[in-house]
Amino acid sequence: MAQFMDVHHGMKGITADQLMEAHKADLAIQSEEKVTFQRAWADPASGEVYCLSEAPSAAAVQKIHERAGHPADEIHPVPLSV
Amino acid sequence: MAQFMDVHHGMKGITADQLMEAHKADLAIQSEEKVTFQRAWADPASGEVYCLSEAPSAAAVQKIHERAGHPADEIHPVPLSV
Repeated sequence: MAQFMDVHHGMKGITADQLMEAHKADLAIQSEEKVTFQRAWADPASGEVYCLSEAPSAAAVQKIHERAGHPADEIHPVPLSV
Repeated sequence: MAQFMDVHHGMKGITADQLMEAHKADLAIQSEEKVTFQRAWADPASGEVYCLSEAPSAAAVQKIHERAGHPADEIHPVPLSV
């Protein structure tokens, strides 16, 4: 398993409820690709959303995000962290 | 206090030691701007680095990052998180 940070652009105006619903939609199916979404942070002003996950691959992260209705614009492995 | 995600581009090839040294340089002076750097994640392949902090403002985050020698390319308040 590796850690990934994915980024969604264009989510301007996202609300706390919408972020929670999107996260729940990921959690509901994530085990089918062996992904674990850990955290998500959103900036409603700029529309940037960041999701931290553990997954076997970036493709697995994207499969879950796509099936949940919100494909990521960038997915980066982040093997280094402090 | 608010939470911020800042992003550094162009850090291709960053090593674990370099990430730790950069983080320590922030920690050493962060209290002077009432910033608390919490986590950082790096993708040496693409050169993206993400830093999560609590701070009174984006300007305070940038002051510390600049003084530590690594100004951020983007700083986003992330008032929403899960």
